Amino acid sequence: MGHKSRFLRVPVEPFELAPNLRADDVLTRMERVSFQGRSLATARRIWEKMLGGDCTIFLGLAGALSAGGMRLIIAHLLAHRYVDCLVSTGANLYHDLHETRGRRHYVGSPRENDAALQADRIDRVYDTYASEQEFIDNDEWIAEFVMTLERRPYSSREFLYRLGEHLWKETGREGILTAAYRARVPIFCPAIADSSIGMGLSQARHRDPGAGHLDTIADVVESANLVIRRPRTASIVFGGGTPKNFINQATVQAEFYDDRVGGHRFALQIITDVPHYGGASGASLEEAQSWGKLAADAEQVTVHADVTIALPLLASALVDSAVETLAGRKPICFDLSGRTMAVEGRPLPPGFEVRE
Amino acid sequence: MGHKSRFLRVPVEPFELAPNLRADDVLTRMERVSFQGRSLATARRIWEKMLGGDCTIFLGLAGALSAGGMRLIIAHLLAHRYVDCLVSTGANLYHDLHETRGRRHYVGSPRENDAALQADRIDRVYDTYASEQEFIDNDEWIAEFVMTLERRPYSSREFLYRLGEHLWKETGREGILTAAYRARVPIFCPAIADSSIGMGLSQARHRDPGAGHLDTIADVVESANLVIRRPRTASIVFGGGTPKNFINQATVQAEFYDDRVGGHRFALQIITDVPHYGGASGASLEEAQSWGKLAADAEQVTVHADVTIALPLLASALVDSAVETLAGRKPICFDLSGRTMAVEGRPLPPGFEVRE
Amino acid sequence: MGHKSRFLRVPVEPFELAPNLRADDVLTRMERVSFQGRSLATARRIWEKMLGGDCTIFLGLAGALSAGGMRLIIAHLLAHRYVDCLVSTGANLYHDLHETRGRRHYVGSPRENDAALQADRIDRVYDTYASEQEFIDNDEWIAEFVMTLERRPYSSREFLYRLGEHLWKETGREGILTAAYRARVPIFCPAIADSSIGMGLSQARHRDPGAGHLDTIADVVESANLVIRRPRTASIVFGGGTPKNFINQATVQAEFYDDRVGGHRFALQIITDVPHYGGASGASLEEAQSWGKLAADAEQVTVHADVTIALPLLASALVDSAVETLAGRKPICFDLSGRTMAVEGRPLPPGFEVRE
Amino acid sequence: MGHKSRFLRVPVEPFELAPNLRADDVLTRMERVSFQGRSLATARRIWEKMLGGDCTIFLGLAGALSAGGMRLIIAHLLAHRYVDCLVSTGANLYHDLHETRGRRHYVGSPRENDAALQADRIDRVYDTYASEQEFIDNDEWIAEFVMTLERRPYSSREFLYRLGEHLWKETGREGILTAAYRARVPIFCPAIADSSIGMGLSQARHRDPGAGHLDTIADVVESANLVIRRPRTASIVFGGGTPKNFINQATVQAEFYDDRVGGHRFALQIITDVPHYGGASGASLEEAQSWGKLAADAEQVTVHADVTIALPLLASALVDSAVETLAGRKPICFDLSGRTMAVEGRPLPPGFEVRE
Repeated sequence: MGHKSRFLRVPVEPFELAPNLRADDVLTRMERVSFQGRSLATARRIWEKMLGGDCTIFLGLAGALSAGGMRLIIAHLLAHRYVDCLVSTGANLYHDLHETRGRRHYVGSPRENDAALQADRIDRVYDTYASEQEFIDNDEWIAEFVMTLERRPYSSREFLYRLGEHLWKETGREGILTAAYRARVPIFCPAIADSSIGMGLSQARHRDPGAGHLDTIADVVESANLVIRRPRTASIVFGGGTPKNFINQATVQAEFYDDRVGGHRFALQIITDVPHYGGASGASLEEAQSWGKLAADAEQVTVHADVTIALPLLASALVDSAVETLAGRKPICFDLSGRTMAVEGRPLPPGFEVRE
Repeated sequence: MGHKSRFLRVPVEPFELAPNLRADDVLTRMERVSFQGRSLATARRIWEKMLGGDCTIFLGLAGALSAGGMRLIIAHLLAHRYVDCLVSTGANLYHDLHETRGRRHYVGSPRENDAALQADRIDRVYDTYASEQEFIDNDEWIAEFVMTLERRPYSSREFLYRLGEHLWKETGREGILTAAYRARVPIFCPAIADSSIGMGLSQARHRDPGAGHLDTIADVVESANLVIRRPRTASIVFGGGTPKNFINQATVQAEFYDDRVGGHRFALQIITDVPHYGGASGASLEEAQSWGKLAADAEQVTVHADVTIALPLLASALVDSAVETLAGRKPICFDLSGRTMAVEGRPLPPGFEVRE
Repeated sequence: MGHKSRFLRVPVEPFELAPNLRADDVLTRMERVSFQGRSLATARRIWEKMLGGDCTIFLGLAGALSAGGMRLIIAHLLAHRYVDCLVSTGANLYHDLHETRGRRHYVGSPRENDAALQADRIDRVYDTYASEQEFIDNDEWIAEFVMTLERRPYSSREFLYRLGEHLWKETGREGILTAAYRARVPIFCPAIADSSIGMGLSQARHRDPGAGHLDTIADVVESANLVIRRPRTASIVFGGGTPKNFINQATVQAEFYDDRVGGHRFALQIITDVPHYGGASGASLEEAQSWGKLAADAEQVTVHADVTIALPLLASALVDSAVETLAGRKPICFDLSGRTMAVEGRPLPPGFEVRE
Repeated sequence: MGHKSRFLRVPVEPFELAPNLRADDVLTRMERVSFQGRSLATARRIWEKMLGGDCTIFLGLAGALSAGGMRLIIAHLLAHRYVDCLVSTGANLYHDLHETRGRRHYVGSPRENDAALQADRIDRVYDTYASEQEFIDNDEWIAEFVMTLERRPYSSREFLYRLGEHLWKETGREGILTAAYRARVPIFCPAIADSSIGMGLSQARHRDPGAGHLDTIADVVESANLVIRRPRTASIVFGGGTPKNFINQATVQAEFYDDRVGGHRFALQIITDVPHYGGASGASLEEAQSWGKLAADAEQVTVHADVTIALPLLASALVDSAVETLAGRKPICFDLSGRTMAVEGRPLPPGFEVRE
């Protein structure tokens, strides 16, 4: 056949079954298959590079991952500092709080009669149910907590740190909010008004107009500042949504402060949206490079898959294969207890101060 | 063949081509086809019922609709009160502002080399380009406008009203923000921190820590209050995202104030996401019924289509077929000039007051 | 702002609503929007170029387009020679036959209880119903027709020509099969065994083992021959599936006979699948260029949309805008009455003869 | 909170990470999460029930699974009789043959320049490459093999059995075709004309008009006969396409012969298409129940995922958890060497005979 084209260098290796394969083995054998299987296997290797690459790693969460049984994986990733900063939708934090408070979500069916569910006051999320009464109880619990805070605006980052602290002290249970509190991982929730946490905050304000004030622009300032404090950042996105944009936006805003910022050095996203309708959730990581959100030479991979399939396999493999890299990692250190956070012992510079 | 099953009542009518069909004709001929074509034709009829149904109609916008050439359709819908309240992502308002200020988005290719675009400082949204330098200029323009505001938190609704007013006075050009200002249609942007408008606000704060403060929890209070002021509401969603959830959440939060609120009476959504991954953008309207976000007997339709195809056809047909219904409509009347808005001449009750 | 980047040449033109817009106007106004709206508008222009470009135009049909109300559009496109050759799934031809025989499909709901439908012997296609008893009657009708044929293998092309002829003589009604018969447009159905037509053929064989024999490899030979008979070909695909591959394969197979064949010169596809899972239905047209199925410089566009939305708008616009181009078109002329077809008066060369 | 609703019985169990989890453990821990993760875990349990349920199990393959590294998983499933009958697209068999003959597919990029690939004669399947010259060589190899066959029509089932035999004798290598030959698993390929195997057959006919004749209607007869030979059948579908329909059609056609056939008793499908466009690939299994393709009380699950992610995990778990069930299984026994196959030692009854 003559000599081979330069395009024909690395053969596809068919996946071979064997008894007792571990998640780590499965993902390793997927590295040379095709399509999204290969992408998922690549995601593990890129995450390992982030861990070994002196990076501040952002993790974005959208979709009903907490209700869907992913919250203890996320908590594990925070607790062991596979990531350094969480950006989440409010719903994921609310459903996490719901379970940390001892309530449950339930196995349901996407074909159940919704009028019957409404009559029973059951809220459905595709194939998963929750009790509306328990949700109302959560809202009240949040409103009561809010009443214990100072009568001033809080960034979502500061508010969620306090919420995690309160939840940990009351329950002592593992979850996303409590793990972030204990591991000092900041959580940003840029769309917090658009969630049941926002509803709890609004109910506190119903009791006292001075309560329940958030300062989400402070989150923009803090997240950009977080980016410029370290030469390299990385982006991990599960599901798209506001967290995806907020993590990317942080590098763009950071350039306002420091034009040496050059976009994330590594990026991985697990999404189900597609690029061709123009929405941000489905946007390709190449597109992010045009904006400078991602470095032009960044290592990156997109996995088109449901997070509830991809993440259990990916994280199970990673906890085995990244043991040494993780042990050698020196994660960035935050003090989250103040009104503005301190990074590696240094508070934000005066120019970034939020209003007193 | 014997008598027909009760399931075989209304035959599919094959679409027949003819010369000079108007959009109105095309959509009428689609009413008895199948799949998403029928859904789109049904959407027009449900919208007509909203217009004739003594409803407060919410419209949610997500996805890059303004950059993608849909902004003057939206402006038309606001100006002529096909809808009463807009909930939008920040990006759609920002890209609208960009064009109202006389800048343009450009026809591009999804296969262009993104490193080349980055080198030329061109930001890509799938097949559409914009100048990063012009975006930076917008950010500064927004920051300057923010500096002219009072040093107190604004709800996104109040802030966007003032922004629309300023934009109208400066440009006199049609667009979403200016049409909403002129037609007194409130705009909520619950995730405003997660957009370039949020970046502009944060840059104002860089100049003065007292500037650029938003109060997004006030938006939760106001939107719920808007729901309870009228016995019937309707929801139109283009693209999902935070606007979809915020519009639905408003009815849930409204029940906190008034348990006679029973969910939207009509709903239509044009989305590209699917339900089976559990995310809110793709959630079915049946699912919303389990939560009571939608009345159990609501008339509703989901159209799975790109808005840039569905909306031009839908809106072109609607402007012809809804002329009389629209003429007879008495849309809800807002006064948006105050810190809290007034609905039909009555200000919000004291309990809803935002903090002074 | 200095001079503009070379990437910023053609601005997006926001769609402007107006009264009484025709489909032609709507699609023209969509030419400078973004995303799939622009793609659909481009599809019309590419189809016009095919019509004016001295091409043999293939049309592929997959998905339940006939049951879904699109069959008279397809019939119109065949009758007026907007296309020259049809490649279809068996289901689309079977559902067309069902309606041409005077039966109907019915408006249904995707949420109906399927056990109840089964009990009533109603077959559901998403939101559309049909009577199973009527389908069984069709199968018998097909088997009876098959019994009238010679006891030899037929290519699907020859078989479907005879079927269309029989249907036209029996019913005199318009449809895909009858329009193709009357306009002498060949129909290929490479997966005919995988359809109810295949079931009808197998039932004929139950009556006589010598009846109901098809020769689908003859279709491969004829379709490749059709490609080489003319210097330029074009591909239009609605929905993907076997027709998409068969139309592309025809150019690859044609190169076996004549290495001057260089792939289709124009291509448009309206699909809902995506490329990233590796399936042929969702494959990009760029990918087809690597195979030489499409010329490297072909004009092409992919529209990601449901055909039941895209096609009524596209075809309604095209029948207005292509009047003159179509009038000037000299479509390729087939004689389909023989065992092998003749193209422009010339029978297939001996090497292509199918077995006697 | 009072007593719980009947809908709140089985709580979601968050996935807990641990070291050294095996695929079996991962999938077991996914059984009580939500969305597609739960569906995939359920798929394993349903497959186990098929294995223990005295069923004839059909497996359908569509999408580029062989090129994509899944062929040795399929070969393993055939060799160990996790399934009893394969229905495949031609492409999956062709790409399997390509690798069994010692050629490879190659790791590529979906963003490579396709004109450059065309110039180098590299064929791209999303992110995977192959040499066109090697494909042409395969076509010739197939044509030569075809020349060794009798000058009469073959069902795809008989033809593929002979092809697997020839391939095994020539190469002695493991693959789908060779494993099926050795394990006496019939393979049907209803759309074989629509593939490179079909092209090879047509090239044989170029050499001798009497060669390369297939009888795909015989496949309809044989597959229906296979269904009626055993009281229970099951359907596994990877990717949709013609195999999905053909497997379902077999039960419908079987009712023509024996009205006690009641549809498949178990069904699982791993697909990426969605139901709402009306196509068969994305159709729900509920819809199949309306047709009687699936029993009204069948146990079934749909997994919306890329097969290259879902199958390695699913199959790795199944080979561990199904050891005992598989050992106790008595799979249906075929003799495939004749012109019509024999099932459990009995040849097809005369009425099913294909034409001599």
